Amino acid sequence: MRMTSSTARPEFGKPEEGWRLRWYTVIFEADTRAGRRFDVALLLLILCSVLVVIIDSVEVVREREFFLLGILEWIFTLLFTVEYVVRLLCVKRPWRYATSFFGVIDLLSILPSYLAFFLPEFHVLVDIRLLRMLRVFRVMKIPRYFDESQVLLQALRNSRHKIMVFLATMAILSIILGTVMYVVEGPKNGFTSIPVSMYWAIVTMTTTGYGDIHPHTPLGQMITSLAMLLGYGVIALPTGIVGAELAMSMMARKPTTRTCPDCLTEGHEAEAGFCKHCGHALAPYQRDTG
Amino acid sequence: MRMTSSTARPEFGKPEEGWRLRWYTVIFEADTRAGRRFDVALLLLILCSVLVVIIDSVEVVREREFFLLGILEWIFTLLFTVEYVVRLLCVKRPWRYATSFFGVIDLLSILPSYLAFFLPEFHVLVDIRLLRMLRVFRVMKIPRYFDESQVLLQALRNSRHKIMVFLATMAILSIILGTVMYVVEGPKNGFTSIPVSMYWAIVTMTTTGYGDIHPHTPLGQMITSLAMLLGYGVIALPTGIVGAELAMSMMARKPTTRTCPDCLTEGHEAEAGFCKHCGHALAPYQRDTG
Amino acid sequence: MRMTSSTARPEFGKPEEGWRLRWYTVIFEADTRAGRRFDVALLLLILCSVLVVIIDSVEVVREREFFLLGILEWIFTLLFTVEYVVRLLCVKRPWRYATSFFGVIDLLSILPSYLAFFLPEFHVLVDIRLLRMLRVFRVMKIPRYFDESQVLLQALRNSRHKIMVFLATMAILSIILGTVMYVVEGPKNGFTSIPVSMYWAIVTMTTTGYGDIHPHTPLGQMITSLAMLLGYGVIALPTGIVGAELAMSMMARKPTTRTCPDCLTEGHEAEAGFCKHCGHALAPYQRDTG
Amino acid sequence: MRMTSSTARPEFGKPEEGWRLRWYTVIFEADTRAGRRFDVALLLLILCSVLVVIIDSVEVVREREFFLLGILEWIFTLLFTVEYVVRLLCVKRPWRYATSFFGVIDLLSILPSYLAFFLPEFHVLVDIRLLRMLRVFRVMKIPRYFDESQVLLQALRNSRHKIMVFLATMAILSIILGTVMYVVEGPKNGFTSIPVSMYWAIVTMTTTGYGDIHPHTPLGQMITSLAMLLGYGVIALPTGIVGAELAMSMMARKPTTRTCPDCLTEGHEAEAGFCKHCGHALAPYQRDTG
Repeated sequence: MRMTSSTARPEFGKPEEGWRLRWYTVIFEADTRAGRRFDVALLLLILCSVLVVIIDSVEVVREREFFLLGILEWIFTLLFTVEYVVRLLCVKRPWRYATSFFGVIDLLSILPSYLAFFLPEFHVLVDIRLLRMLRVFRVMKIPRYFDESQVLLQALRNSRHKIMVFLATMAILSIILGTVMYVVEGPKNGFTSIPVSMYWAIVTMTTTGYGDIHPHTPLGQMITSLAMLLGYGVIALPTGIVGAELAMSMMARKPTTRTCPDCLTEGHEAEAGFCKHCGHALAPYQRDTG
Repeated sequence: MRMTSSTARPEFGKPEEGWRLRWYTVIFEADTRAGRRFDVALLLLILCSVLVVIIDSVEVVREREFFLLGILEWIFTLLFTVEYVVRLLCVKRPWRYATSFFGVIDLLSILPSYLAFFLPEFHVLVDIRLLRMLRVFRVMKIPRYFDESQVLLQALRNSRHKIMVFLATMAILSIILGTVMYVVEGPKNGFTSIPVSMYWAIVTMTTTGYGDIHPHTPLGQMITSLAMLLGYGVIALPTGIVGAELAMSMMARKPTTRTCPDCLTEGHEAEAGFCKHCGHALAPYQRDTG
Repeated sequence: MRMTSSTARPEFGKPEEGWRLRWYTVIFEADTRAGRRFDVALLLLILCSVLVVIIDSVEVVREREFFLLGILEWIFTLLFTVEYVVRLLCVKRPWRYATSFFGVIDLLSILPSYLAFFLPEFHVLVDIRLLRMLRVFRVMKIPRYFDESQVLLQALRNSRHKIMVFLATMAILSIILGTVMYVVEGPKNGFTSIPVSMYWAIVTMTTTGYGDIHPHTPLGQMITSLAMLLGYGVIALPTGIVGAELAMSMMARKPTTRTCPDCLTEGHEAEAGFCKHCGHALAPYQRDTG
Repeated sequence: MRMTSSTARPEFGKPEEGWRLRWYTVIFEADTRAGRRFDVALLLLILCSVLVVIIDSVEVVREREFFLLGILEWIFTLLFTVEYVVRLLCVKRPWRYATSFFGVIDLLSILPSYLAFFLPEFHVLVDIRLLRMLRVFRVMKIPRYFDESQVLLQALRNSRHKIMVFLATMAILSIILGTVMYVVEGPKNGFTSIPVSMYWAIVTMTTTGYGDIHPHTPLGQMITSLAMLLGYGVIALPTGIVGAELAMSMMARKPTTRTCPDCLTEGHEAEAGFCKHCGHALAPYQRDTG
């Protein structure tokens, strides 16, 4: 889940001087004032272009505002093209940027508009522009949200093996349950094939329950009832896993204020009498009131 | 989430003497006997007026009891008007009350009835009266429920950054998933536009699953299955977050106040008779009442 | 939630001698061998009678097995009548038993059959017999399940104030959301009245989502999406509350093996050095491996 | 939930020498290089045969690829037959293997194909082959996933009594709720019998909500609303139970092994360099690999 952000990417090569260094600082580094402003402006631009793509899909609006939406699309395409070219120009190793995760997305988000100019059927690919929205995850670099995101990501990362076991169990259960229901209910009750039955099994076990496919025979309803009740226990696992993991990491992070007077290590437990890093005696713990 | 309650609001200005002070004590202060009685009576009145609004919306009843419901509405309007005027009269700074949160709601809840007298089309706004129901949250000032509400609000407040990250993730996921399904399933299968697809994505990822829109193509069903399983992990986060936060705050509140008079260790259990660290006798536990 | 069980109920009056004492021991006391056997037999009888009521509701079976089901019903009625009469005979204060919770249920479960003999329309009340099933909760007296039930009931009992706050919040949210959707969508889209809209709001916020009523207008779908996402945070509360409460009570119950050598009190914490009840020094804690 | 795996099963009798020992090592023991390869190959073969069964159920594909699917089925049948015969040959006590859990499944997965050769109606039983997929749970023996599976299984095993109490409560609630709704709504609104109403009650209380059956009368909708809200509290239990259980076992497993050589305090963190109680230097932490 580690998202490759473009903030201060040394691997692209920071240019040594001149306008390229100035532009590099603005575009790739978020710690200067101009850099932060560029980031916010880019994010707003991306959100606007996403909004246009979304609005463009509503037929009523598309028919009425055909002209306006077309102009807006070309404005965004040109702005993104300029941004892409400047990014290429001001890094030392343009190829590295062009082949990086966000480099490819940046290219993909402008290409379809140009291709559609010659071959109109490419226009449907304009929606790829939505991927640029992944830059929103840069918000996770904002200090206020960074810690929280880290705790959540850490909890997910620590639970990944458990979640794999859970997903494998779900997959096997859905195959078995899907096959049983395909045999019990059969195509005439909507369970037209095992893949469709497996789709039904997942819709049921996640308690989504669209109702597009549902059991009609008494035996099928009985199996469904059992599957829902037993499946509920299985479905309870990810919540429990992530919750327990979060409680653990939040507890482990709690006592961060105690500092060793000798080696300045932080985060000693409330009951500790000596620094766990250098063995120096700690001052008695001042508990918070509240 | 801090709800502005009208109990003992010094900023409105407590009058110094006479009938205004007496009325102020009854209406704005909940700690006297008359004040508590007024509070309960007002709450019952509000609940009755809400009930009338709800019942009034049932066509069968409205046609049969048109006259009775109209009379009840005017009784409530007059009572609320009297209350509003008295509130204005007995505070020192009426303007402050009139522009406060509950002051505006109190006015809005009586205005539509009077306007409808002249312009019948305003009658639909009578439902604004429902907002007065927010006064029910005064119940949170009742000692028995106050602590519990505080724990819940505290848990929500502590989790707010995590929940923001979660909501942002959900928003981005719903845009991506909505666009993918709009492209895969298309308008002919009910995914008529990206906004509608996003609505479907949220209905699916929260496992609500109305079934008004659902995938028809095998590819769409496969993407839906994956989205439900993976989305389940994301959806597990708020439960985990709030649960972990609650467990933390409940643990932190439990037995922290008892202190050994000899070695000053804190956190003895309520039933303990001797210090678990030095064996010194403890003073009898003073249990909270509530 | 404290279920009044009929096991060894001294308030009914234990007879002093003779056959009444023998029968009392069998029927009301579960600790003798005969008493346990009677309990198991009664439970099986109740389950069978419940099964007959359930099967009787299936039209296909009722038509085919009309005669058999009628006979079975009368057998159960007679057996329960005999049990009821014996219970009345062998206690010292029959009136007390007759007016106790299970006494009333026992009477109600046989009365409809007799009434239906004279007035056939009373037959529908035979289903009251299902209430006898509440005796199944006697299973909670079985040592193996008693502790577990206690932990669960304790967790629910400790959370009752929090759950009240949660239910009140849900009620207010459903009124507000129901009214908003009644105004936004209106009767033509299925939101025929505020009560129906409130029913929809609860179906939505609990993520059940039948789909019998669902938003049709873009604004309604937007409000629904927000309601589901925000409501998910509210819905996460009971899970979090009960989970945290369970974790607390399970943790509090954990260290039960340490025993004071002097006063034999159990359940000292792992880090305790002295008995918290008598102050006697404790042997060092032998931690489990595993 | 303890899954009988066929890895190194001494009860089948390890042959003493010759080709039977060599084959036994390959087929039944997973710790040698050849054994691991055989395991992986067998797993892939099983997954392929499952895939063929799934694809075979899609009518469009079955009609077009009738011939290819038939050949593939016979290839899998022959390969599984060879495997079955070799397994029988190379163990000392073939009968014990033949009557073991996986021995029976191995036989059942090849029998239907042969029977269908003579009696075509047996062909539907070919789906039994899916049960071979249970061998996938051997993946739980892979060290990386073993621990995680153990934690999850342990949490489920510890919660089994609580989950039994939960399932019993759900069963009783569904009978009572089903009967009430059968009486209130009746057959004309889809609640055709008590079993069907019970199916509806479980669909509702697990918040699946297909919508195939839903209340139509105001009273039914009110009861449903209450059932969903109150049922939500009950449904919250398994999540809470499993989550609390997981948190407990994860906490118990964390840093319990490190012991101070001087004061013998246990439970130091992995990064600690000195005892937090007496300040004595700790031996470097021996981290687990896995």
